[in-house]
Amino acid sequence: MISFPDRLESAINQCHNPVLVGLDPRADMLPEGLLDPADAARPEKVAAAYERFCREIIDVVAHKVPAVKPQAAFFEQIGPAGTTALANIIRYAQQQGLLVILDGKRNDIGSTATAYAQGYLGRESAWGADALTVSPYLGDDSLEPFVEVAAEQRGGIFVLVKTSNPGGRMIQDLVADGKPIYRHVAEYVERLAASSEGDCEYGIVGAVVGATYPEQLAELRAVMRHTWFLVPGFGSQGGTAADVAAAFDAQGLGAIVNNSRGIIFAHSLKPYKEKFGAARWQAAVEAATCDMIEQLRTDTPAGKL
Amino acid sequence: MISFPDRLESAINQCHNPVLVGLDPRADMLPEGLLDPADAARPEKVAAAYERFCREIIDVVAHKVPAVKPQAAFFEQIGPAGTTALANIIRYAQQQGLLVILDGKRNDIGSTATAYAQGYLGRESAWGADALTVSPYLGDDSLEPFVEVAAEQRGGIFVLVKTSNPGGRMIQDLVADGKPIYRHVAEYVERLAASSEGDCEYGIVGAVVGATYPEQLAELRAVMRHTWFLVPGFGSQGGTAADVAAAFDAQGLGAIVNNSRGIIFAHSLKPYKEKFGAARWQAAVEAATCDMIEQLRTDTPAGKL
Repeated sequence: MISFPDRLESAINQCHNPVLVGLDPRADMLPEGLLDPADAARPEKVAAAYERFCREIIDVVAHKVPAVKPQAAFFEQIGPAGTTALANIIRYAQQQGLLVILDGKRNDIGSTATAYAQGYLGRESAWGADALTVSPYLGDDSLEPFVEVAAEQRGGIFVLVKTSNPGGRMIQDLVADGKPIYRHVAEYVERLAASSEGDCEYGIVGAVVGATYPEQLAELRAVMRHTWFLVPGFGSQGGTAADVAAAFDAQGLGAIVNNSRGIIFAHSLKPYKEKFGAARWQAAVEAATCDMIEQLRTDTPAGKL
Repeated sequence: MISFPDRLESAINQCHNPVLVGLDPRADMLPEGLLDPADAARPEKVAAAYERFCREIIDVVAHKVPAVKPQAAFFEQIGPAGTTALANIIRYAQQQGLLVILDGKRNDIGSTATAYAQGYLGRESAWGADALTVSPYLGDDSLEPFVEVAAEQRGGIFVLVKTSNPGGRMIQDLVADGKPIYRHVAEYVERLAASSEGDCEYGIVGAVVGATYPEQLAELRAVMRHTWFLVPGFGSQGGTAADVAAAFDAQGLGAIVNNSRGIIFAHSLKPYKEKFGAARWQAAVEAATCDMIEQLRTDTPAGKL
């Protein structure tokens, strides 16, 4: 199997867009008919509804976008039944040709970090994800086991660098040795990425950089030329296509832009709700996906893809 | 139900020691007879072996120590079957009178953080843990949802502040505004703890501070007087009872000290192996637990409990 960065580049080129669809199921926002309200406290019923919901979204977006990003929290929220649904969804998405980046924000040290990495990274692993998001607070020796396993298993990781939420400033924007903390993390991540290049110029270690901080996106793109960016914060968090333009390289590569609620719950957003009604929620998902693709193609270097 | 900090204090006082037994099962280190080597690649068999191993440890340490700390990574490593075993182990430990601190080092933002918190915190939740470890890189608005749910559900959280691994220095020891990053996090955690006191003087927000940094343990104890400390790094990582002495307050409260491999895999450590042989592994677990209790009672303020 070819490396994760090369597979990501190839998938983006095939789809001609860098849209990452976030799979964040929530019981109280599912389209009508997927979960009987009387079953909302029964984990197996909720898990089955999440699985059906995600499968139908995957059916809509496969071959349109390169990748999906299941959010582990919403599956774990309902207990072990939810994690079984998560594993099923990961496999199903891949069967439909999608790459899967699992958003778990895991981290730990030494052999514990290795356990997470072995469990999640690569299609032969228990969960089978192509890539995993990872948190950096524990430092370099907590990230190295993930990098090693990712290299062995043809997987990738995305390390939190500059997150999209306002509170991210608390630690990430503190200045030490003349640079904000996120910049220290960024430079370490770039070194890891540069030492693990695929055939494309990007490495197996990527960075999470929020759409809500366009200036930092530009700053980091300039100093992280071997690092794939996973860009959250588009849509419901306020990021626009213009805001994420700086995340791309001159060829329109180097970044994937996530949208979760703005796509999967499009049926509850006014323009789509009016057009499709509540029942045709899959059509709303499709329209919202196509609209986001078009916005990125119009207002960012992704138009060159 | 009374608050988590009050239940923790009560459990420590009843057991007269602050030992936290880490449940970190690994297929290649299990005592003989628990897992047929031919089944090592079958998740259901490994999960069943982990569950039996942890149940037997719980049977040995219940009523001797106040709490156990399952490490989520080792259960997740084997896939959904592992997470079912984890949920079963949490319930079983509580049935035997133990508090359960789940080591998951979770974090995320906004409603996603709420989903993790609702899934894990409190005995009514899907996983039912009494407390959860949480990572702070995403900042204050990522921690607040955990604090809110912990307050509602009578649970607690332990935020990573100064971790036991050498690489923790990479971010945690950078100096901003005249203070290392861990100190910035510590002061924020102490404010959260002080605003959520139970009947005892400690709050629902605790801190992870490694046994391998005794000076920082003393520094942080002095400025975090409302914050329970979860102290990893004792035993196989090199921390001694003398190293952790500064984690306690004058009454011998304020800290719980974790030991994972040094207790659960005592059967593979020379002194216990020679004394009990491989077959009597539960006796090795018991002896190692009693030895650690004795070391803490002799060399730390926990002797006053």
